[in-house]
Order: sequence, then C-alpha cells, then structure tokens
Amino acid sequence: MDEKTRRAWAYLSRVAEPPNPRLAVLVESVGALEAADRIRRRALDDDKLLRATEARHEMNGAAADLEVLDRAGGRLVTAEDDEWPGLAFVGFGHIDHAKRPQAHAPLVLWVLGPLRMCDIAERAAAIVGTRAATAYGEFAAADLAAGLVERDVAVVSGGAYGIDGAAHRAALASEGDTVAVLACGVDVPYPAGHSALLHRVGRHGLVVTEYAPGIRPTRRQFLARNRLVAALAGATVVVEAGARSGAANTAAWARALGRAVCAVPGPITSASSVGCHTLIRGDATLVTRAEEVVELVGRIGEFAPDVERPTTEVDGLSDEELTVFEALPRRGKRTLDEIAVAAGMAPADVLGPLTMLDVRGLVAREDGCWKLARP
Amino acid sequence: MDEKTRRAWAYLSRVAEPPNPRLAVLVESVGALEAADRIRRRALDDDKLLRATEARHEMNGAAADLEVLDRAGGRLVTAEDDEWPGLAFVGFGHIDHAKRPQAHAPLVLWVLGPLRMCDIAERAAAIVGTRAATAYGEFAAADLAAGLVERDVAVVSGGAYGIDGAAHRAALASEGDTVAVLACGVDVPYPAGHSALLHRVGRHGLVVTEYAPGIRPTRRQFLARNRLVAALAGATVVVEAGARSGAANTAAWARALGRAVCAVPGPITSASSVGCHTLIRGDATLVTRAEEVVELVGRIGEFAPDVERPTTEVDGLSDEELTVFEALPRRGKRTLDEIAVAAGMAPADVLGPLTMLDVRGLVAREDGCWKLARP
Repeated sequence: MDEKTRRAWAYLSRVAEPPNPRLAVLVESVGALEAADRIRRRALDDDKLLRATEARHEMNGAAADLEVLDRAGGRLVTAEDDEWPGLAFVGFGHIDHAKRPQAHAPLVLWVLGPLRMCDIAERAAAIVGTRAATAYGEFAAADLAAGLVERDVAVVSGGAYGIDGAAHRAALASEGDTVAVLACGVDVPYPAGHSALLHRVGRHGLVVTEYAPGIRPTRRQFLARNRLVAALAGATVVVEAGARSGAANTAAWARALGRAVCAVPGPITSASSVGCHTLIRGDATLVTRAEEVVELVGRIGEFAPDVERPTTEVDGLSDEELTVFEALPRRGKRTLDEIAVAAGMAPADVLGPLTMLDVRGLVAREDGCWKLARP
Repeated sequence: MDEKTRRAWAYLSRVAEPPNPRLAVLVESVGALEAADRIRRRALDDDKLLRATEARHEMNGAAADLEVLDRAGGRLVTAEDDEWPGLAFVGFGHIDHAKRPQAHAPLVLWVLGPLRMCDIAERAAAIVGTRAATAYGEFAAADLAAGLVERDVAVVSGGAYGIDGAAHRAALASEGDTVAVLACGVDVPYPAGHSALLHRVGRHGLVVTEYAPGIRPTRRQFLARNRLVAALAGATVVVEAGARSGAANTAAWARALGRAVCAVPGPITSASSVGCHTLIRGDATLVTRAEEVVELVGRIGEFAPDVERPTTEVDGLSDEELTVFEALPRRGKRTLDEIAVAAGMAPADVLGPLTMLDVRGLVAREDGCWKLARP
C-alpha cells in the first residue's frame, strides 16, 4: 500500500464516526483514494454521508496519526489486506434499514502486534465481564483463559479492569494468543492502570481498534467496540456481570451475529453474577470449564469430556442383585430364607443374585449363611 | 375405613416390596380385603405376584404396625381416601412393560401430620440436594424455602442432612407447609440427628412414607422414595449436588413425570455445585429466587418480576443525543462547531439533540457555548 493510499484510509477512519455503512459503500465502489478525495471536495451524491462528514472533512491529521502508529510499530488493516478477518464479518449489514441496531463491518483497523488477525478469528473465544469483578470472577476468567490458550484458542477481550484484564493476563502468562479490542486510539492509555498490560498484549498478541490515535473512549464507542469483540470470537463467555453490564451488550452482539453465547455461573448471593444467571435463564450456555467453550469454537467433533463421577461398589448391579445385597445386615449373617423376607423376594429367586454378588466379591458364604464380604 | 380393612391395607403395604404394580392391579380389581386374603391363601393367578409375596405372606405384623401408627397419631392414606393426591400420580405406569424404570403409584402411604396430602400436591415444590452441603448451599435452600412458603407454596423434601434439612427447617421457621417423604418407617429415627426435626415436620406439616413402621432405609428405597418427592411437587429444585448425587435421581424422576426440573447455580470452584451445573447444561432451568420457582408451580400467569436494573442519566437517549452528550468535555465548554467535530456530526444536526439534552437537564448553555449540567 503506497503512502498516499494509507493516508486516504487514515483520513477515512476519522472523517465519519465509525462504523458508517454509507462510507463503506462509497469506498467499496470507488476505492479509498477517490472516496477521500470526493469527501474533501464535498462531491457526494449521498446526502446523509455529506452531513456525516461535514464537521470533520477539513481535518488533516492523517499523516500525524500514521506517524503515531508507525512509531508504535503498528499497521493499518483494511479489507484490501491479506490478514483482514473477512469471515468474521460475514453476516454484518451494510446499510441499516431496520430500526434495531445492526452490526456493520469496520472500515479500517489500527493494529499493533505480531499475530495475524485472520488466524486469530478462526479459533478464538471472547472472555468478557464486569469491571467490578470479585476474586471469584477473576479466578474464573483466568482459569478459562489459561485453559483456552492451552487448547490453542485465542482469548479476545476488551482490555478493561476486572474480568477482561484477568483474561488477558492469564493468556499472556500461559504464552497464549490474546487480543485486546479497544474503544480508543492505540496510543491512549485507557484504562490508565492497564497501560503496561496493553503494551504487553501489543507486543505478544494483538491490540485492535477502529479509532484513530488520540481518540478517547466514549460510551457509544464502547458499544461499537463490543460488536468487534463478539465478531472476532466463535463464542462469547460472560464470566461475571451485574444486572447492568456492558458484557450483556457483547453477548447480545454475539447472539445477533450467530455466535455462541456462554456464561459462567456463580453464587446466587453475588451481585456480580446476576447478569450471568439472567443470560443462562435466557439462551446462553452455562460453562464451567475451558473444554466446554472449546466445544463451541473448536473444530467439529471436539467435545468436552464428561465430568468424572465417583463410582461405588454397587454400580452396575441389577435391581434384584441390589435388593439382595441390601437385604444383608451390616454385621452378622443371614440364612437364605431370612434374606428372602428382608428382600421381599421368593427364596428361589434369591440364590441367583447371591451367586452373582459372590462372583463380584461383594458377599461371602459362612456356615450355610451369607454375609457382606466387607462389612 | 373399618379395622379389618385397615389391617388388610397394612398387610398389603408390607407383603411385597413397594411399589409393586401387579399388587396394585389386584387390589384395584378385587379390593384390599379380598386381595390380602388371596395372597395369604396363595390363591393368585399372577405367577410373578405369587413369587413377590412368597417370602412375606405369612407375616402378621399389621396390627402391631397400626398400633405404632396410632400411637404416633398417624393414619393410612390410600386411593380410597378423600385426601389421596391422585392427580400427582397421573401418568404413573401400572405395569412395567419397557425396560427402563417407570414410576408406579404408591399403594398405601403411612402419614403423620395435620395437612391434607391432596392440598399440598396442588401447590408444592421439592427442594433437594446433597447431604454434604456447603454453608452456601444451606443458605440457598433456606432462602428458597422461606420464599416459597411465603408465596403459599409447600416445600417437599426427603428429611436428609444438608440441603433437605435446611429446606424443612426454613419452611417451619416461616410457619409454612413442609412435607418430608421418608425411605423408612415413620417410627424409624433416620437420620438419627434429624429425629427432632422430623417430629416437628410431623406435628406442623406432613411425614409420608410407603414403608411400614420399623422398616429401615436402603439404597433401593431411597431411589423409590425420590419418585414420590418428585411426584408430589410441581417442580423439583436441586440446590447443591456433587457429580454423583441422589438429587440427580429425583430430578430424573421429575423429568420423567413431566414436572419442571430446576437447579441453583453455584461457584464453578465448588464440587457441591457440579451436579447442578450439569443439570443446567442439560434441560434444567437455572433458578436464583423463589419467584422463579413459583412461576413454574404456580397458577397460570404468575410470573417472576424481572431483576431490578440500576438506571443511569443517559437511559432513553437517542443515538444522536448520546453522541452529542459524549462530545461535551467533562469540564469546560464547547462551541456548537467544536461539538460537531467531536461528535462527527454536521453542525446543523447537533442543535436538535443539544436542545433535547437541555430539556432533560443534562446540558447547560453558557456564553454561547455548551457544557455538561453536572460535570
């Protein structure tokens, strides 16, 4: 990509509030350079796009923005790049005809980090949740993230305090792939306490944003960011969420995009699990282990093993065998007739089961009577 | 019921291991007196019933059993009594043709307590779970039980240590109706540590069992008992259950009988919640509050109110209003054009939303600029 085209993309990234589906249509039809030129010259047929770009069309920060990106060692990624995760955006709408929010593909992504976006999107799960996480929630997020990267699944999250941070940290600690999708420019230290963490994510994983350098996050941008978190992952796992949490928004995007929605349960006494329980009472899948998430994002046929169940000596006994077994006293012995009365079975029906129990080593014979082998 | 008939029922209760569907068929066709007489005389066409009653047909403990019952102030309840909860047993099979376990209605119930069985079965929920309950599980069981009886729903359980005991205790403490279904005779103090509790349940609620006085519990009887717990309740709630727990058996009966199956979530780190999470990953409904259970056992149209969500000042703002609101700085003020650039909107489109925000008291005008009303 030549510098002129890069600058055009960078200009387009800022000139309308992303995502703008009308801008995407224009770029698709005439290319980035021509689109940028027409916007600058106000030579647009689309009146709505004319208005959406009116306030910023004279801004000229593209070169400076790219310099910030270059200095950080980052890159612009667009639909023209090999690593564009196009499949992740299949099913995204182009122009919003309906009233309800519709997901629009991003136009330009500002990206830091050694991973390729398309590789990640093929096998990733999002771990999201409240900033006000409990120790339990942070443990659960870290445990899931570590389990996922161990199974070669990348962990996507939002870089926030609480659940997001615990997920990124655990993925990094296991030397796994992790992606932070931001609601601000790559150079904006938000949240302030995570600048070192995000730096590490950018060095080993990926930091991704639709927003040009210097742009600070807003509520609206958080909501738009959430759709990218959901889109880049095969499944979204909400680990902890209050009655009102941004994580529910990410889950809603995941559902709208046809991705799996999961939630981790917690104590019914914990306000930080209320949102998760509401999701599970809806259509979210309850998950407790990374294997159960891998099942949803993994290759076909990759099933979580069943929970191990303890076994007891009477497993596999027939109904009659169990009845006879339980008709023997804890200590002491009984005749066949006594066993029959206790079991409520005909004496003739008792001998067969007794013999089978003897074969299994559960009962023993003594002086013509029977007793438990291990009282 | 005359004493001779009562003795016949008591005899029938013991002569074959309950539930015995072939015995039920006989009693239904010739009555209890004649059925008892035929069994004593070995005058039976049904060869299987002949064998099932062979060991015990000469026993003659009926009078003594009834004396124990009378002394405890109890009664026999059969299908001939007004209080027989017949509707609870609709859908129970009579003779097991299929291989898999099938629920059979009880023949005789030994009952203590002032409540009428049919009244209870109309509006009851079962609260069951592991004996090895955690403090969390006991709290959850007690909280649900108290909430249910407050809403006029009876609490059915099995009288065991752990979850069962917490449920009974909380129901009694709230002066609500509670029913303990035992796997042993009404006079058998099992579990030993619950004899005072069961005495209280028998005085204020109901103690119910298929087993004649003196009969001690066995594994098989626990499993048979579980079907009655499930049958007497409109919904079965598993509060805590390990990977292997009797509560899962009660849940399976409830499912087989077409009753609602619910489970309470817990920490994924708790072995005592593993069984609940497995149930919810299956088809059980996650419940966190009594209202959500009442919804399932209650009268039609009795819905749980939604969880309350905290609200914020920006609730109900349109997309444009939110964008403009967030384009204002935390502190300080901006001109209309500055707001337009920050919002990425045409200056002409900014004034409308600003005015609406002004009306809502969220922004204020000052020296031809705009600022947040409450920075």
